[in-house]
Amino acid sequence: MPKYLTEFIGTFFLVLTIGCSVLGGATLPPLAIGAVLMVMVYAGGHVSGAHYNPAVTLAVTMRGRCSPSDAIPYIGAQIAGAIAAALAVKFLLPGAEIKAMDLSKSVPQALVAEALYTFALAYVVLNVATAKANANNHFYGLAIGFTVVAAAFSVGGISGGAFNPAVAVGISVIGLASWANIWIYLLADFAGAAAAATVFMIINPTDK
Amino acid sequence: MPKYLTEFIGTFFLVLTIGCSVLGGATLPPLAIGAVLMVMVYAGGHVSGAHYNPAVTLAVTMRGRCSPSDAIPYIGAQIAGAIAAALAVKFLLPGAEIKAMDLSKSVPQALVAEALYTFALAYVVLNVATAKANANNHFYGLAIGFTVVAAAFSVGGISGGAFNPAVAVGISVIGLASWANIWIYLLADFAGAAAAATVFMIINPTDK
Amino acid sequence: MPKYLTEFIGTFFLVLTIGCSVLGGATLPPLAIGAVLMVMVYAGGHVSGAHYNPAVTLAVTMRGRCSPSDAIPYIGAQIAGAIAAALAVKFLLPGAEIKAMDLSKSVPQALVAEALYTFALAYVVLNVATAKANANNHFYGLAIGFTVVAAAFSVGGISGGAFNPAVAVGISVIGLASWANIWIYLLADFAGAAAAATVFMIINPTDK
Amino acid sequence: MPKYLTEFIGTFFLVLTIGCSVLGGATLPPLAIGAVLMVMVYAGGHVSGAHYNPAVTLAVTMRGRCSPSDAIPYIGAQIAGAIAAALAVKFLLPGAEIKAMDLSKSVPQALVAEALYTFALAYVVLNVATAKANANNHFYGLAIGFTVVAAAFSVGGISGGAFNPAVAVGISVIGLASWANIWIYLLADFAGAAAAATVFMIINPTDK
Repeated sequence: MPKYLTEFIGTFFLVLTIGCSVLGGATLPPLAIGAVLMVMVYAGGHVSGAHYNPAVTLAVTMRGRCSPSDAIPYIGAQIAGAIAAALAVKFLLPGAEIKAMDLSKSVPQALVAEALYTFALAYVVLNVATAKANANNHFYGLAIGFTVVAAAFSVGGISGGAFNPAVAVGISVIGLASWANIWIYLLADFAGAAAAATVFMIINPTDK
Repeated sequence: MPKYLTEFIGTFFLVLTIGCSVLGGATLPPLAIGAVLMVMVYAGGHVSGAHYNPAVTLAVTMRGRCSPSDAIPYIGAQIAGAIAAALAVKFLLPGAEIKAMDLSKSVPQALVAEALYTFALAYVVLNVATAKANANNHFYGLAIGFTVVAAAFSVGGISGGAFNPAVAVGISVIGLASWANIWIYLLADFAGAAAAATVFMIINPTDK
Repeated sequence: MPKYLTEFIGTFFLVLTIGCSVLGGATLPPLAIGAVLMVMVYAGGHVSGAHYNPAVTLAVTMRGRCSPSDAIPYIGAQIAGAIAAALAVKFLLPGAEIKAMDLSKSVPQALVAEALYTFALAYVVLNVATAKANANNHFYGLAIGFTVVAAAFSVGGISGGAFNPAVAVGISVIGLASWANIWIYLLADFAGAAAAATVFMIINPTDK
Repeated sequence: MPKYLTEFIGTFFLVLTIGCSVLGGATLPPLAIGAVLMVMVYAGGHVSGAHYNPAVTLAVTMRGRCSPSDAIPYIGAQIAGAIAAALAVKFLLPGAEIKAMDLSKSVPQALVAEALYTFALAYVVLNVATAKANANNHFYGLAIGFTVVAAAFSVGGISGGAFNPAVAVGISVIGLASWANIWIYLLADFAGAAAAATVFMIINPTDK
């Protein structure tokens, strides 16, 4: 239970920060979002591994560092956290003008952007948080959080910048993304993460 | 005495940076504020534990890592530092136009925003600075400081973004917050921190 | 092979982030670019040393920490990654208005700016990632990535801010730099890196 | 000699980045400046202690971690680096409009702002880079660099934001500060640093 609660809390604050910083007109949502992911990774890593992202859970499970029996409750906790945060955002910013991003003319671009940077995120997670050569490092949260800083600055304007199926659900509940596009995030994010797990095993052949 | 002086200094620079960066028109007050908290945590952690925040002192005391006899002088030093900094801000920016944030139409939102992110701050502090599993880490200041970066970007526009009763006193002395609203910060910040201490004990059941 | 694949991936995401953040209108390309370099250094350092930059490969080879037989395939993988990323940028932002930076009136300035900050980058890499006195540190990625943050903020407007021959190739393929200027980057970046290797050996005389 | 060369290089890039980011219109000079200080501290710390600042050299000497016979050549190397950088800035940005900051109506404010944040800088340096309780930490560069991020965002508009007599010389050579005001920086910065050394000894009474 502590693990699932930790996943709930981390994903909750990730989506809360996304919603509030984007809707509240913060000057630099990508920095706020990467920062909150970083701090939640540092806070919860020792309890749950700090995935906060079903695509990361998939990649870590493929790499053998999350038991398959944990994967489903992890993902459930992440999605529950995302939905709770979305409702909190709606409560906190009742008058915000919310418009779903229009991806109708750029579905291939959105798919590729999401897949590439979710690959990057899972690739960074696996290398900094599960590779034996990096055991006991203190930079894992910094690396993971700032992957999302870079990703959101780069392609947030192309795909909306979820890189995370739970975030995709959260921003759809808020209304920043359209439910009609949820498949883009699910397909691209899980595919990018699975590719990252495969590449990790290729570049770390002796690290079982 | 060194501990109380350290708490005074850290809270002084926290409130000084808040006042000067907000009133002086800095482009990114949340980054400046999170940065100064981070550096003061790294500078003073080995002396006082680097709370700089009565709500954090409450949470750390509940978790058993601050003796109750220290809690009151800690909070006194923090508030004294905040008031001294507020006076310094007024001296440094004599011509600044100061307007208290109007929360009259959004008290519930301000309460929830403060409570949620003060929870996040205390939750991060307890996990990165007091959990046995994270003993001797080097990321505690980074995690704590950047929690405030994320929080201020997210809900600074909703509640004013104190997450800290001493900061609430400081910004009230400066005039950025109204004294009529001080109860919002006191209630929400202490409640959020107490909730974080409770959750910490749930997710770290064997860490006494 | 894992080493070359790691160099390909790191340089790919570096150039992808440069292209997307600059063309997509991100508010702070230097932060996005430094962030992605940092995270790729942390992710790939344990496999390849995480150069992602032919000038860095030159400096590390001169310092004796990269075998000359690896240098050529490293540089090949870096350039291949940069070109692949440039093509991905063109796919992701098909309608972007792309204009090559005009350096015609400031060639000496561009040469000096590139040489100075590539010196800084290679100097930082050699000291934080190869000096015996800094063995097993956890800050190497932070230091390397934020060198590029500082460099790009400082002289991005003077030279375009490559500090990396593979990046120079990538931004030339994208069209942000003119092929007629590629010699500026090649000359200045390799010269700056070679100077850094020389200075490193002077300030670390006993570290062979 | 390696120590003095390291001080020269670090201060050179600090002033180069200040000049280029301010004059070149970078969006966030404080972030660029803090970043370059951080990376140069990480790069040179193991050689010279990475002061890059005569006020820091004073504080570290008072605390007994820099031999008095080193202090003068350190300061000489820092000032030489600052002047060289100022000349490089003038070469790199020949057409920049340069206007010295007018402090005539706010000398007391400038003195206090400089003294306070130079105190903060030296206080952070002494605690993170010389306190026995923080031996072998990996966060010293992050803490030192981001002190300047916070300081420059906070009071850059009040005093110009040197916090460093060598930087004061550099920005006076460039023309961003007036030579008539150099005494403000010298007086306030050395006084702030000396106060920090005194406070350090009070809060760390057993750390000789």
